[in-house]
Amino acid sequence: MVDKKLSGAGLRGQSAGETALCTVGKSGSGLTYAGYDVSDLADNATFEEVAYLLFNGELPNQAQLDEYKASLFKQRDLPQALKDVLKLIPKDAHPMDVMRTGCSFLGNIEPEADFSQQHQAANRLLAAFPAIMCYWYRFTHDGVEIDCTTDEDSLGGHFLALLHGKTPSEQHRKVMDVSLILYAEHEFNASTFTARVCASTLSDMFSCITGAIGSLRGPLHGGANEAAMDMIQKFSSPADAKEQMAGMLERKEKIMGFGHAIYRESDPRNVIIKAWSEKLAHENGDTSLYDISVACEEFMWDSKKLFCNADFFHASAYHFMGIPTKLFTPIFVCSRLTGWAAHVMEQRSNNRIIRPSADYVGPEPRKVSPISQR
Amino acid sequence: MVDKKLSGAGLRGQSAGETALCTVGKSGSGLTYAGYDVSDLADNATFEEVAYLLFNGELPNQAQLDEYKASLFKQRDLPQALKDVLKLIPKDAHPMDVMRTGCSFLGNIEPEADFSQQHQAANRLLAAFPAIMCYWYRFTHDGVEIDCTTDEDSLGGHFLALLHGKTPSEQHRKVMDVSLILYAEHEFNASTFTARVCASTLSDMFSCITGAIGSLRGPLHGGANEAAMDMIQKFSSPADAKEQMAGMLERKEKIMGFGHAIYRESDPRNVIIKAWSEKLAHENGDTSLYDISVACEEFMWDSKKLFCNADFFHASAYHFMGIPTKLFTPIFVCSRLTGWAAHVMEQRSNNRIIRPSADYVGPEPRKVSPISQR
Repeated sequence: MVDKKLSGAGLRGQSAGETALCTVGKSGSGLTYAGYDVSDLADNATFEEVAYLLFNGELPNQAQLDEYKASLFKQRDLPQALKDVLKLIPKDAHPMDVMRTGCSFLGNIEPEADFSQQHQAANRLLAAFPAIMCYWYRFTHDGVEIDCTTDEDSLGGHFLALLHGKTPSEQHRKVMDVSLILYAEHEFNASTFTARVCASTLSDMFSCITGAIGSLRGPLHGGANEAAMDMIQKFSSPADAKEQMAGMLERKEKIMGFGHAIYRESDPRNVIIKAWSEKLAHENGDTSLYDISVACEEFMWDSKKLFCNADFFHASAYHFMGIPTKLFTPIFVCSRLTGWAAHVMEQRSNNRIIRPSADYVGPEPRKVSPISQR
Repeated sequence: MVDKKLSGAGLRGQSAGETALCTVGKSGSGLTYAGYDVSDLADNATFEEVAYLLFNGELPNQAQLDEYKASLFKQRDLPQALKDVLKLIPKDAHPMDVMRTGCSFLGNIEPEADFSQQHQAANRLLAAFPAIMCYWYRFTHDGVEIDCTTDEDSLGGHFLALLHGKTPSEQHRKVMDVSLILYAEHEFNASTFTARVCASTLSDMFSCITGAIGSLRGPLHGGANEAAMDMIQKFSSPADAKEQMAGMLERKEKIMGFGHAIYRESDPRNVIIKAWSEKLAHENGDTSLYDISVACEEFMWDSKKLFCNADFFHASAYHFMGIPTKLFTPIFVCSRLTGWAAHVMEQRSNNRIIRPSADYVGPEPRKVSPISQR
């Protein structure tokens, strides 16, 4: 039994079900997907293997992976009607509203007819999300109607090629692949729980993922790497970073990218993306952004004993690859979709509708009085 | 402490928070909105008064109601871009996918910039939903690009006028108004809980409502009145209904529109909509559908002690008003939006992110083996 304070709100510490997909913050291993440590996966697997793992419970062999990637490759383009919808969304729209709407619209024209199509629906979204993001972005920001197909082997490379309109470097492909692995799955976080509540009514895959995108949009959930980037860019040097952050703490301003609801001492994803950020800094000849980021990390640890979470060094890593800050959270969608869809499949496999109770704190019973007497 | 069976799945019997909006199945009163019995509201208030109550905590006086209705009246039309999107959705799409997408798209072009706009966003959706539904329906089914404005005073009348392209009768206006009141709010049901989980990340109103629509789409949640209609239409007479239903029970087929997860002896909404269904039957000169519905009710009570829930007599009532069965659940959206939005506002007013835990039942820690060895 958890203590009263913990159980009081937000279902914190209360179990809402079972999962075989993920452990977060368990002793001995910080984050596992289906038993595999996320750092092991980042070192020794690709994002497509992780997606396959989450959807099927086991890593693929070479023949299975080849077949899976070939299937995804063929599903990357968008139907014309979806392109037309994306062109109707203005440039200043919230990119997460674009992702939510693109997902929802696709559910109209390529519906999941029944649950036997759940892998098909999940994989279609996995293949199409980079194009949904980039087609809208490039049309509204650059005035270009891009070709939504590329020759890139991986989804990470495909995204970078769509965004920049040119072949990405091998190192950029690798970093994007690792990033997609790191964000893929994280147990019953709010967006995943949204997907499971929706799935528990036996609704369709597109509804579940659309709902999850809407929850990830919230500033308490997604968006921390965007906020971190906005902050880092205001600092002119490591010394300036420490000075300004001291002021922010003094003014009790929220500093994003540090600490975690569940991890207590470190976020296992930080060391991985930090190392890649450093490599990208060298490649880019960066003499400022990475050092400033490290200064932020040192300052927050020294002054508040707060560690960088997965989001903080993602900011500089994405920036070094030329990704606009406003697309950071949509990339999160392209990755976490795998966890969301896997949880939808798991919920369906042993379902009971998720319908909690509420404590009533409203008015006592009363009578409607005639409007003339109110 | 609830017993183990109840607490095992779906959060049944577990409190997920507080609400001042609604009680369900409490002794002495079956269903209250902010302290008012739903039957009292159905008899003595209008849907717009109920929406105002849910959004503001108190029923409006005449001046407040006049101002509120005038505001809604002005917001009924759709932006051209949304009409263009609706025209891109095929005729055979699921109407709930249309509602979900229409809501999501509107969030791109009329975003809720911050929470000070939450009433504005909720009221915009309240005013626009009948047009989203009917513009798509009439365009794809009748080939007509309807004018989304009408002179109708109430939202219920407005919907009927948009759907049929003519002024509804006073009785139809009244029944639609009552129906919208009955479906407006129902505590922490799955779609409302979806909206609250999304709201708990501090996401925007459009994301919360879009997610809720996706959950209501599930056959374990919305759609019972559609399923009831499909069943009733297969019966040729009251005697045939009883005979066929006996066969359905024998074959353990699911019969929709009866029983309830929380109500134990009756659904307080049934007696209200049943009375209106009977009046409409008389008005229509019906000699079959209403009597068959009553026969179904008698049979289920006599054989299984199961009572009609809110959905069952809604089927015949909507049918008598010429509403196509596939639009029954979208009407539910037009009504329940009020409850969803009120819960979003309530969640925001005392928020903690809703992030439960999970019990891990997956593989033990394992190492990634090289793909050649899998």
